[in-house]
Amino acid sequence: MPSFDTLVAYAERLLKAAGLDGDKPTVTARLLVTADAMGHTTHGLAQLPDYIEDILAGKMTSVGEPDVVADKPAAVVWDGRRLPGVWLTDKAVRLAAARAKTTGICAVTIRRSHHIACLATFLPAATEQGLMVIVASSDPSDAHVAPFGGTRAVFTPDPLAVGIPTEGDPILIDISASITTAGMSARLRREGGSFPGEWALDADGRPSRDPNVLVGERKGTLLPAGGVDHGHKGYGLALMVEAITQGLCGYGRADGEADWGASVFVQVFDPALFGGLAAFTRQTEWVAEACRTNPPVDPARPVRLPGAAAMRGMRDAMANGLTPRPGLLEALEPWAAKLGITPLRNA
Amino acid sequence: MPSFDTLVAYAERLLKAAGLDGDKPTVTARLLVTADAMGHTTHGLAQLPDYIEDILAGKMTSVGEPDVVADKPAAVVWDGRRLPGVWLTDKAVRLAAARAKTTGICAVTIRRSHHIACLATFLPAATEQGLMVIVASSDPSDAHVAPFGGTRAVFTPDPLAVGIPTEGDPILIDISASITTAGMSARLRREGGSFPGEWALDADGRPSRDPNVLVGERKGTLLPAGGVDHGHKGYGLALMVEAITQGLCGYGRADGEADWGASVFVQVFDPALFGGLAAFTRQTEWVAEACRTNPPVDPARPVRLPGAAAMRGMRDAMANGLTPRPGLLEALEPWAAKLGITPLRNA
Repeated sequence: MPSFDTLVAYAERLLKAAGLDGDKPTVTARLLVTADAMGHTTHGLAQLPDYIEDILAGKMTSVGEPDVVADKPAAVVWDGRRLPGVWLTDKAVRLAAARAKTTGICAVTIRRSHHIACLATFLPAATEQGLMVIVASSDPSDAHVAPFGGTRAVFTPDPLAVGIPTEGDPILIDISASITTAGMSARLRREGGSFPGEWALDADGRPSRDPNVLVGERKGTLLPAGGVDHGHKGYGLALMVEAITQGLCGYGRADGEADWGASVFVQVFDPALFGGLAAFTRQTEWVAEACRTNPPVDPARPVRLPGAAAMRGMRDAMANGLTPRPGLLEALEPWAAKLGITPLRNA
Repeated sequence: MPSFDTLVAYAERLLKAAGLDGDKPTVTARLLVTADAMGHTTHGLAQLPDYIEDILAGKMTSVGEPDVVADKPAAVVWDGRRLPGVWLTDKAVRLAAARAKTTGICAVTIRRSHHIACLATFLPAATEQGLMVIVASSDPSDAHVAPFGGTRAVFTPDPLAVGIPTEGDPILIDISASITTAGMSARLRREGGSFPGEWALDADGRPSRDPNVLVGERKGTLLPAGGVDHGHKGYGLALMVEAITQGLCGYGRADGEADWGASVFVQVFDPALFGGLAAFTRQTEWVAEACRTNPPVDPARPVRLPGAAAMRGMRDAMANGLTPRPGLLEALEPWAAKLGITPLRNA
């Protein structure tokens, strides 16, 4: 089983050989492997072949910094120029964190970022400093989710991730405005599976468990969170995420973007400048403990705190390495050969 | 049918006679009637008897201003001293709006507020100025919602409201982290109804449509949004809302609050200081239009944009007045008599 650092170094070499400059290969590699370690395997190293392909095709910008569109004490807008989204988002979290320590809050929004992969991976950079952080994204070039009561896709799953410091491990929330994602649906289609519930509508608006209704000539849609029963909740969340990710940065669906990428919203709160960090974590720890010790519906399945499994996965991967998902290293081999990098193989 | 202003004036007289000073009666009365006009009748004038009772019992503070706990450029914390929550929250929106015009964002959090009623009513004060606003609240003295997979209530429904300017009417989102609310459940119990779906768990964790499982010796719980199928979504939202409403203001469940009230989070964004207001509304209008014109699942039920019905209701109430919910004026009569106010009666 390769170590965490071995996987990072391999991804870093590939990204650097493909052309990314500066610390872009290091940061991107580390956070993609972190996604795998956290268990978000659809949004970790599995993205690497597509990233390399886009770098080589000039669809991911390899060099330089984002352009600054707006820069106010608590509000920053960058034009990401299709730079690597993982690197951009990590950079945005670090800037927002630094600013929040003076203003209390700072938001950084990014237009025209390339794909940002797994939102949960960006959270610890803030929570480790005793800061609360929100990361949200949408892809204005794509749509899978219809508004509640409708049949034509308007939104992407529009994920929203929140990192909350406690007295122990942080709470790491990573939810989307739809019940499931395009990535999970594609995986189920490949594996011949179905959704565990009616998570989609076919093109005529009939609820379905079949991920195949989402593809083909007459495409169906993913249902917003709450599903046919109370999907106005996910619909509301999607509208909020679209406004903070595309409205605030002033670029999005109205511009007819054609390329895969992201509009990103990052906001950091410094609890020390509100009611104090100890007062903050005293509340969040109380709630975390009330969840962890909650009498479960099924005695075999204790109540989980979001992020607990991810933090365990990270610690385990750092200590013992991690097994790449079947087929992952094989998918990277042609790219390694093309870029003149020694391939990493399963032992 | 009484006019909008007649109802406001009546509520204002009652609140003033009960003891509220300054502009507290006016602001509270106007926003309660606004809630009724918007269709949120559980959180409008229906709250007035309880408010008056709490004022007279000294459980709602009648006089003075909130104490300032923290005051940074983009982060303010008030101790609400159990002042009227509707008035406090409206004041917080106005302060955050004024500050956001310099900083880009400002958040105001309030500990120890009295009840704040209907979150959607606070949004137009910001959206009318071309600002985006978020209002969230929780009640640390109460709990109805269990974490996903658990059976013991930890959270209140933890509502989250978002006002988003467009080129036309604003989008007014008002959702909660649970499928339904305590107020709706109480109304169903009184009317002998059931939930339209499995929106609750009984004390043993069995899904139920019966609102009676929430009361009695062995209390059940309200399910988080997503229900038994994907309730981790609502659970995540609840954790976020508890952190921004109780964590940031540094006061909440850990303090064993016993009295009905709220911890409040208000945040205003000024799009003009991000990518520009016109660029913002260009995106939000595009999305709003894609929702309004979306081919509906049921041709008889066009896709609705959140807030559209509320804005229609407001305009209709301003033009034509509104019919108080059956029993409402009757419930106020004893208070009017006690306070020496001429009662308002149905014509």
